Amino acid sequence: MNFSELFPANQHNEQNNEPEVFSDAEILGMETALSAARQGVRGANPLVGAVIIDADGTFLAIGYHRGAGTAHAETDVINRLLGTGVKRDLSAATLIVTLEPCSHTGLTGPCTQAILDAGIGNVVFAVRDPHQPAAGGAEILANEGINVRMGLMAAEAEDLNRQWFVAVREKRPFVTARLAQTVDGRIAAVDGTSQWITSQESRQDSHELRARVDAIVVGTGTVIADNPRLTARAADGSDAAKQPLRVVMGLREVPQDAAVRGTAGTPSSPDRLGDDDFLHLRTHDPRSVLQELQSRGVGHLMIEGGATINASFLEQGLVDELVVYLAPTLLGSGIPALTDLGIGTLAQAQRWEWDATLTGPVEILGPDLKLTLMPAKAAPEGS
Amino acid sequence: MNFSELFPANQHNEQNNEPEVFSDAEILGMETALSAARQGVRGANPLVGAVIIDADGTFLAIGYHRGAGTAHAETDVINRLLGTGVKRDLSAATLIVTLEPCSHTGLTGPCTQAILDAGIGNVVFAVRDPHQPAAGGAEILANEGINVRMGLMAAEAEDLNRQWFVAVREKRPFVTARLAQTVDGRIAAVDGTSQWITSQESRQDSHELRARVDAIVVGTGTVIADNPRLTARAADGSDAAKQPLRVVMGLREVPQDAAVRGTAGTPSSPDRLGDDDFLHLRTHDPRSVLQELQSRGVGHLMIEGGATINASFLEQGLVDELVVYLAPTLLGSGIPALTDLGIGTLAQAQRWEWDATLTGPVEILGPDLKLTLMPAKAAPEGS
Repeated sequence: MNFSELFPANQHNEQNNEPEVFSDAEILGMETALSAARQGVRGANPLVGAVIIDADGTFLAIGYHRGAGTAHAETDVINRLLGTGVKRDLSAATLIVTLEPCSHTGLTGPCTQAILDAGIGNVVFAVRDPHQPAAGGAEILANEGINVRMGLMAAEAEDLNRQWFVAVREKRPFVTARLAQTVDGRIAAVDGTSQWITSQESRQDSHELRARVDAIVVGTGTVIADNPRLTARAADGSDAAKQPLRVVMGLREVPQDAAVRGTAGTPSSPDRLGDDDFLHLRTHDPRSVLQELQSRGVGHLMIEGGATINASFLEQGLVDELVVYLAPTLLGSGIPALTDLGIGTLAQAQRWEWDATLTGPVEILGPDLKLTLMPAKAAPEGS
Repeated sequence: MNFSELFPANQHNEQNNEPEVFSDAEILGMETALSAARQGVRGANPLVGAVIIDADGTFLAIGYHRGAGTAHAETDVINRLLGTGVKRDLSAATLIVTLEPCSHTGLTGPCTQAILDAGIGNVVFAVRDPHQPAAGGAEILANEGINVRMGLMAAEAEDLNRQWFVAVREKRPFVTARLAQTVDGRIAAVDGTSQWITSQESRQDSHELRARVDAIVVGTGTVIADNPRLTARAADGSDAAKQPLRVVMGLREVPQDAAVRGTAGTPSSPDRLGDDDFLHLRTHDPRSVLQELQSRGVGHLMIEGGATINASFLEQGLVDELVVYLAPTLLGSGIPALTDLGIGTLAQAQRWEWDATLTGPVEILGPDLKLTLMPAKAAPEGS
């Protein structure tokens, strides 16, 4: 089977009626690659897993992508198999990967080149990479004489990253909303006190999340009420090496001495951060915030409140991942985690589902639980 | 060592300064008994586990109590070892149990008699049974010539059932509060719709909980708004064999045709329940409700709302177990799970902890999570 049969010129729809035939070893390989993919973390990049099998179906290696800035799944699995500099004849081997190998040099080199360098003769992937600078890897490989087939477990692979596909399609960053709340859904007491709803362990996990995203956004109200620095900090309190862009949205002024500006070191945090890592967007519109951040190269945005900002992104369906730090406490009153989502009756409730990546939908963080959710795929059975 | 040394006449405090010495096998046995106890379910009866070891420390059997109406841990472990009617010389064996063997005939026969019938020569238990009709088992056994020692891992055993001990001390039922809410802590939408916040699986679990308790209480507001039957139903919708007492509290009248009265069968539930299983208590005071129900022999009460009733019991520290069915949905507005608990600032937040019995603090029920909490033991480290 040659490439032109699979990818007719000017026809990238791939809705042909001749289903590809895959071997049992390839099917098992793709199942394994999907499981490996779930060990990654969601964000600017999709979850991707890969395996290499020999001509007789023997598993040679398993790899996956660990998040933006780390090796892609294809490079990871090749490195695991070959190490550095080792040569091995892989012309009869097959690389099975959950997403089309990328063709562009981002933070890492293109996967197409890594596959060619390794001399792998066959590639099977599940779904096309819709991300424009990266797309077209299949054609490049086929033109180099590699046997490329696609579509194996495509539905599963698309489902695994369905919110990432949505974000790419909408040309906006992947959006994580973070809530730190009591069991009864409060983020602050009636007098506004909110430090700390959750435990030291949860806060440290939040800092690790901050170090992973490209930008954090809060509302002007949160800046005025809590004066957060919005930096990612290590367990010892020092600033992490990688810092997100600190974004404030809203029409009110951000005070000149606000910690989020990064120019006013406090005694407990004397290190100054550059003004260029701070951005005030004078809008209430989440979509315009996302558009502006996309143009600045933000691939992953985290929303850190307050309740109004959380609700404005949620109401417009612009949250791809919801992380809830749930403290085993009750307040009974105070500030709810969310404000109005425009929902009038129970049938309109926003439906989510627990996101079962490696850590599962629930993690125990000291006394707290961390719940991770993603928007539900489809409406459930009627009541 | 004889009994009078351990339990001096008229001195049941047992705060003597001579710590009992236990063998490694006995310590391991008690640890195992405590683990076995956690396989039970909380309620009117405490969690109790028991093991029998041979003279050389060999484990012979492990047992535990599965909840009101089932065999006590001592009977369970003896039955597991001996089966029915089998005789075996256990005069050198030791029964290790997390709570003092009971001396009274409740729903099952006294454990003291079961131990005597089995011919077990030695008993080690962790803590005294404070429940008056059942207490005094140690003395009965010692008077029959059994070597009885107490106090092994007493702190752990007391901690395991600490809320049960509180309820016994306060001469009130053990109280479970049940919430069915969204992730953002809402039990109904803004228009009052609440059927169904949670899934079929969660509702079935709720019915199993109802079948386990002795009484359910709701407020008059819930009766008027939702007209619940408050019966425990099997998966097929039929009424369960054991039904709780249905209690309504509040000053408003319960309508004559309210389903909770059990006299008005609906087409979907034609079976009529007796009026004598229904009780209207004209009070807003949770303590007077508990006092009345205690006098009627209720050992385990479940609170099923609404938000005001939930809050009134919680505010007075009268909830021993909190069961939260958490649906992966967001409402953003509507009726919160709780009303005011009299908490003005975060430092006053009610502190709970996840209850790690067999099922763990989190169970997955279809699309929902079931969280189980108990009041926290002590104030955590300061912020």
